[in-house]
Amino acid sequence: MSLDGLEKKKTIDLRKKHIGPSCKIFFSHDPIKIVKAKGQYMYDEKGQRYLDCINNVAHVGHCHPDVVKAGAEQMGLLNTNTRFLHDNLVLYAQRLQATLPDKLSVCYFVNSGSEANDLALRLAWQYTGNKDIITLENAYHGHVSSLIDISPYKFHQLSDAEQSHFVHVAPSPDVYRGKYSADRPDAATAYADEVKDIIEKVHKKGHKIAAFIAESLQSCGGQVIPPVGYFQQVAEHVRKAGGVFIADEVQVGFGRVGSQFWAFQLQGDDFVPDIVTMGKPIGNGHPMSCVVTTREVAEAFMSSGMEYFNTFGGNPVSCAIGLAVLDVIEKEDLQGNALRVGQYLTNVLEKQKEKHPLIGDIRGRGLFVGVELVKDRVKLTPATAEAQEVIYKLKEQHVLLSADGPHRNVLKFKPPLCFTTEDADLVVEKIDPILKELEEALGLKANNSANTENEKRRKLSTDENGHSGLHYSNEGVQEQTKQRKRMKT
Amino acid sequence: MSLDGLEKKKTIDLRKKHIGPSCKIFFSHDPIKIVKAKGQYMYDEKGQRYLDCINNVAHVGHCHPDVVKAGAEQMGLLNTNTRFLHDNLVLYAQRLQATLPDKLSVCYFVNSGSEANDLALRLAWQYTGNKDIITLENAYHGHVSSLIDISPYKFHQLSDAEQSHFVHVAPSPDVYRGKYSADRPDAATAYADEVKDIIEKVHKKGHKIAAFIAESLQSCGGQVIPPVGYFQQVAEHVRKAGGVFIADEVQVGFGRVGSQFWAFQLQGDDFVPDIVTMGKPIGNGHPMSCVVTTREVAEAFMSSGMEYFNTFGGNPVSCAIGLAVLDVIEKEDLQGNALRVGQYLTNVLEKQKEKHPLIGDIRGRGLFVGVELVKDRVKLTPATAEAQEVIYKLKEQHVLLSADGPHRNVLKFKPPLCFTTEDADLVVEKIDPILKELEEALGLKANNSANTENEKRRKLSTDENGHSGLHYSNEGVQEQTKQRKRMKT
Repeated sequence: MSLDGLEKKKTIDLRKKHIGPSCKIFFSHDPIKIVKAKGQYMYDEKGQRYLDCINNVAHVGHCHPDVVKAGAEQMGLLNTNTRFLHDNLVLYAQRLQATLPDKLSVCYFVNSGSEANDLALRLAWQYTGNKDIITLENAYHGHVSSLIDISPYKFHQLSDAEQSHFVHVAPSPDVYRGKYSADRPDAATAYADEVKDIIEKVHKKGHKIAAFIAESLQSCGGQVIPPVGYFQQVAEHVRKAGGVFIADEVQVGFGRVGSQFWAFQLQGDDFVPDIVTMGKPIGNGHPMSCVVTTREVAEAFMSSGMEYFNTFGGNPVSCAIGLAVLDVIEKEDLQGNALRVGQYLTNVLEKQKEKHPLIGDIRGRGLFVGVELVKDRVKLTPATAEAQEVIYKLKEQHVLLSADGPHRNVLKFKPPLCFTTEDADLVVEKIDPILKELEEALGLKANNSANTENEKRRKLSTDENGHSGLHYSNEGVQEQTKQRKRMKT
Repeated sequence: MSLDGLEKKKTIDLRKKHIGPSCKIFFSHDPIKIVKAKGQYMYDEKGQRYLDCINNVAHVGHCHPDVVKAGAEQMGLLNTNTRFLHDNLVLYAQRLQATLPDKLSVCYFVNSGSEANDLALRLAWQYTGNKDIITLENAYHGHVSSLIDISPYKFHQLSDAEQSHFVHVAPSPDVYRGKYSADRPDAATAYADEVKDIIEKVHKKGHKIAAFIAESLQSCGGQVIPPVGYFQQVAEHVRKAGGVFIADEVQVGFGRVGSQFWAFQLQGDDFVPDIVTMGKPIGNGHPMSCVVTTREVAEAFMSSGMEYFNTFGGNPVSCAIGLAVLDVIEKEDLQGNALRVGQYLTNVLEKQKEKHPLIGDIRGRGLFVGVELVKDRVKLTPATAEAQEVIYKLKEQHVLLSADGPHRNVLKFKPPLCFTTEDADLVVEKIDPILKELEEALGLKANNSANTENEKRRKLSTDENGHSGLHYSNEGVQEQTKQRKRMKT
């Protein structure tokens, strides 16, 4: 038995016995037992430190003392429901409102991103009187049953996948791998027109649109950044059809994108959603979340006559913690840090891209960064196994990173916002040789425009898509996409 | 401005501006601002103490120091998700399992009763491959959209109430006001046969049953205690049809009923649900809850291939708090206290019933007690306005009680389990004169078998059902029901 508790094997055995087997663990063949954490670091039972590049929930840093203090003090004073008046509730709502456009003024406090997104659907259904929902390809919006229905990321995993007849899936506005690429000047319009087409089809079936829902930047979907102007045009089409626009900021809000507090604001000041949902980071790990909407939507929801009561939502402890998180973001300029360190991280990763043909795309805003690994920069063959290899090798070197996206080939950076340039250097220094080794095994070479078809076939034996005289370049996405197009024609 | 924060009016104004109007407040014409709480007492901004008879979430007492300490310490050490190994998770699961029958061995940790009941439905759907759900009249199972569908308590409030075609509502097994009363020796069978009939109708429509769901004791539905043997028979019918039995213990579990730890155990040792959901009391206010099921159901859920991940569920802080709550229940013998004080409370209330014709029924197990107010003990005319009056008058005297049930005429006692016999005496002493005054206004008299139709009509002007020479007795439920039956024939 270790000093800190059960022997690791005992913990694993008890977990197998008593925890639902659908609840997966990181690095299942050799999981990590974490016993403490501070800032951007986690520590295992032997005191080994891990650099945490993935825990976006620990937004202002693991166990931030100001947040812990606020929570602990309020826990000792009062923790009850919102049927009693309390200052924390209204002061927190006021503070949140101040970060948002004026018309987003009414809050509902709930306990998780899933509860928030489900409530957003209920608000949309009640306000519009319509039922149908448009969601994005690869989207993930939560684990309750209503959200599995609108999460292709989840429902595509089911063997007997059966899509709700009122849910419609629009293409992900992914300008790297998606239907329309970044070299197309009207990519935003092209993707928005896909939504318009869906609306027309829905109307032909006699259905009506209640809402379009999207993460402001797709996270699990592969760190996708929609082209500017896309949300404005989608909102126009959806509102014309009587629906509302729900921006899911559960993973990407609260200053992570650096230049703005909310990721939807990256689209420009002329875009305001009708409903915004927030979650993971807002309590730095405390179970809390929020839905903010307009007075009009809120009044319509009330007009049903049905009370909305959430036992834990908006309790004084959650609100005290929420206020402390906002204070820390301000006091430590964590949004500014996300901008600066995020830019630095993107820059050092771009230099890696020059060296490593496995890196197909670097995309990010602030400390929300994706590195898409491909075995072929023209055909964009996903380097799924290689991404897993990177993750595992990093773990052995005590760096926590994850891979996601529909092909699980996008390395996801979403660290606590106290992440530093030194941390960025550390992780990139460790990624460099791992990529080099993988590329050698695959026979990939930087700037290898002379790579012949035969060479590739021989070396890329595991790649079913590896064929025809492709060449690897260090050119940008637009150039690669042009090549891809030329090949197709 | 008071010492403790905003002026009350300012708090109210901000709440109106920024909190969803569907979120109701207690005593809306003069709400209470609570700033601290301890044990079974809450305190307003002026230091006024209130006796709390309603907050079943503060299960071991508001702000219990052991629970606060456990939460605060773990918050400062580590708060992360269950993709890392942690002892708190497995030790808590093990402790919970020890309170349950052996076959209920697999836990899923989530954040709220709503998340728990939604997951229970997902488990049932996946395990059975069927879709239809049988729920009880007046049931409330949570606020997410899937649960509104199975909560007649909620969906009956909607003006355009539209029942899901896969949801079927069975009569509430209420032996006081329901279809079959306590004088019927086979009430359990009669109510269970109603479920059997529903199953047959469902089968005729070509549908199949996934689950029967019920609170082990109906709370919002009016503090209803099902007759012993009902659950066994329902489970037999439901399982024969390929469905599972979900026992919702969110409000009633964790020792509240005194004689047992779980309310479903009141039915006898021969009854074991397939899925148990728990919530409100388990974290003493911390947002956490749990679903426990059998290995078979858990394996079937995993076989879908879909991971179940809940960002906050089962985090080390929640589990530390959960463990502390279980420790306090044991250390302070709170289950024993619930049994003793609950029995005392029921006894003193029974004495009130002898004096007060407004009291139609006293029913309870441990510190889960309902007092049903009626204007007519034979016709059971609900004394809805009178129940509200009791609540408001008690509030003026600094006692917090609530009224619920389909007619909102059942006074609900569900205090923190540290409630004492002195507290019971205090609240009953205050109820006594309030009931007397109400009865005088209504012209009701104890043992007034001579009350004539004319007298009643004159005095009970607000009672649309007040007619015919009824008499008020202090006889038990069975006698009253017999009278009611005689009248009907």
